[in-house]
Amino acid sequence: MKSDLRINADRLHQRLGELAQIGAIDGGGVARLALTDADKAGRDQVVRWMKDLGLEVTIDAIGNIIGLRKGREDIAPVMTGSHIDTVRTGGRYDGNLGVLAGLEVCARLNDINHVTRRPFAVAVFTNEEGARFHPDCLGSLVYAGGMSLADALAEKAIDGAILGDELSRIGYAGAAQPGWLKPHAFLELHIEQGPILEAENLIIGAVEGVQGISWTEVTIQGVSNHAGTTPMHMRRDAGYAAAAISVFVRQLVSEMGGNQKGTVGRVEQFPNLVNVVASRAVITVDLRNTDEALLQQAEARFHAHLRELAQQERVEITTRPLARFEPVDFAPHMIGMVERLAGEFKLPCKRMPSGAGHDAQMMARLCDTGMIFVPSVNGLSHNVKEFTKPEDIAAGANILLQMVMELAD
Amino acid sequence: MKSDLRINADRLHQRLGELAQIGAIDGGGVARLALTDADKAGRDQVVRWMKDLGLEVTIDAIGNIIGLRKGREDIAPVMTGSHIDTVRTGGRYDGNLGVLAGLEVCARLNDINHVTRRPFAVAVFTNEEGARFHPDCLGSLVYAGGMSLADALAEKAIDGAILGDELSRIGYAGAAQPGWLKPHAFLELHIEQGPILEAENLIIGAVEGVQGISWTEVTIQGVSNHAGTTPMHMRRDAGYAAAAISVFVRQLVSEMGGNQKGTVGRVEQFPNLVNVVASRAVITVDLRNTDEALLQQAEARFHAHLRELAQQERVEITTRPLARFEPVDFAPHMIGMVERLAGEFKLPCKRMPSGAGHDAQMMARLCDTGMIFVPSVNGLSHNVKEFTKPEDIAAGANILLQMVMELAD
Repeated sequence: MKSDLRINADRLHQRLGELAQIGAIDGGGVARLALTDADKAGRDQVVRWMKDLGLEVTIDAIGNIIGLRKGREDIAPVMTGSHIDTVRTGGRYDGNLGVLAGLEVCARLNDINHVTRRPFAVAVFTNEEGARFHPDCLGSLVYAGGMSLADALAEKAIDGAILGDELSRIGYAGAAQPGWLKPHAFLELHIEQGPILEAENLIIGAVEGVQGISWTEVTIQGVSNHAGTTPMHMRRDAGYAAAAISVFVRQLVSEMGGNQKGTVGRVEQFPNLVNVVASRAVITVDLRNTDEALLQQAEARFHAHLRELAQQERVEITTRPLARFEPVDFAPHMIGMVERLAGEFKLPCKRMPSGAGHDAQMMARLCDTGMIFVPSVNGLSHNVKEFTKPEDIAAGANILLQMVMELAD
Repeated sequence: MKSDLRINADRLHQRLGELAQIGAIDGGGVARLALTDADKAGRDQVVRWMKDLGLEVTIDAIGNIIGLRKGREDIAPVMTGSHIDTVRTGGRYDGNLGVLAGLEVCARLNDINHVTRRPFAVAVFTNEEGARFHPDCLGSLVYAGGMSLADALAEKAIDGAILGDELSRIGYAGAAQPGWLKPHAFLELHIEQGPILEAENLIIGAVEGVQGISWTEVTIQGVSNHAGTTPMHMRRDAGYAAAAISVFVRQLVSEMGGNQKGTVGRVEQFPNLVNVVASRAVITVDLRNTDEALLQQAEARFHAHLRELAQQERVEITTRPLARFEPVDFAPHMIGMVERLAGEFKLPCKRMPSGAGHDAQMMARLCDTGMIFVPSVNGLSHNVKEFTKPEDIAAGANILLQMVMELAD
């Protein structure tokens, strides 16, 4: 191993605890929806810490925050980072860990007055969760050039607010052009947010890439009528059609097997009364696969089913794409480095895809990118009970520190 | 035919139009949820009309309104009636027709100064729809002794209000004991609220009885987790289970055939986010059959399925009965009388069960009861587009008038 330097786990946990106080909700969770007052308070805290650590803080026009630690040479930096926005009932680790572990790397390098050859940067990306504005990973997507700044600023929140207005309101509409600092490499430490590492007694996931994501909103228009008087064969029941789609998604995923996933997370039915056949239903379908060809196959079969079902149930089915990202493969030497360092630390590790979207998947468009996963207890995330053991957090942060030193020196 | 007296269709339509102005909503519909201000305004109007017609108005303790037209003898009256509360997006005929046709019968008898031997009563029952308070047909159920007054007064509205408080607030907590006036016979004119009469080119339905109704609220408790990171086999997806139940209900009904019906009208899913496996779902299941043994069989198969599904999906499923009424058979001589009079009027008619619940089904516990159905255009009801042709309304009201005269004289 290049260095015997280790992170200060207590200091990292102290920051995790302090940040979790901002937007704290019952049960130990956090609610800091993107660009709300709570998000602003969280950002202000992180910026204060960055400045205290001597980082040069730059805010870009989409609100991404980058804290830069100068290197011996003025060349492309090694960058790490993640996000601090949360879902409505989020935990304290998702995103926050990646940002605060980055700050701890800075702090530890400061402790020993070590200046790396390359600069080192810690980034906080805007609206990663997609819980208030679509799409998710918006800040890193704009940073990587995958979405225009103008389109992103015009995004409308679920509460009706406009992203650009909210950014100005909380004082995070910066002057820098998103993408202004092109990294040499990007690295993100994140909780797994799934049950696999824990189930297999592993501590480190060497993330190979991110699943492709296909989100579709499906609206079914039928005819509302009385549940007691309408013969079954004369119904055009939007609610039944919605349920049939949900069951089909499960069946499709089961038939395809492998890494195919499918979820109907949101369902709304109108008029939603016990004795009225539903006139309309709106559902969302979340399909994911690590393989783009298979994901396209799933989408094709899904849409074919919608056409059949519409005919069979005499309902009108329309779809609206909500998000679509192809699978992303991380740089092989970054994956290999995580795996090698886990071995050197004697931490049980495996290569695995990420089931969730992450800022790293957007940054992979700009530079060699990698991710380090640490276990989520009971696989829980987006949940106030989200928890990762302190020793696992320290393990992941130490791999982050080593990688930064190897990549930057 | 006993009499050549015919109702005044224009006057009946005028009253239907005036009542529909109270709580009018876009599209020609009506929203007068039980015991709201709009319901109070509608009740006030009906009471004014009753008094103008010389009826003696009595309000009972559950808010049922009875207008009594004296007979030559002080004996059990012939009673007709229905309700004037509506669903949130209701039409102008459902319930209202039965009440206002009753008033038109009074008006026509007044026109010719005919006093029947038996008294004639027109009843307006509280909360027939069940759209604000459970159960539906509450006023007639209490009137017929099927539910205690105390329990009914304690019912909580979907908006949190208590029925007894609302009754006092709108001034319809009367002094009379529900059931105070026991009819000789009860008769209800109602729109079919289904598509059968129209589809078969019929004008009159001689209603044989009311389907049995079984309403169940089903709550599924699973585990919320990330839609991208949770392997399919580790999910405990409450949303999928809810959809599977809905699809099962359709399949059950299809297998049982005959008069079995099944509807999942209400679905709610939590946290209801596109990328979160649902932790909890609540749905309602409405099962109906004209045959009690078959309805019990449907319920048994439904509950067996819930047990299997809970095990298979590793979710917890609990049920709460919302309403349960056995099928009701109307008095054969009342059914026969509707059929005979339809023949004498040369109106195409068939015997049929009622798919919907009605106040008449409760009144059948007290006395010989019958119902007259007239067609609903496109089978629509509980819908602002609810419509019945004026000539069909007149046809039904004329049969009502004849039956009242035959039964009361």
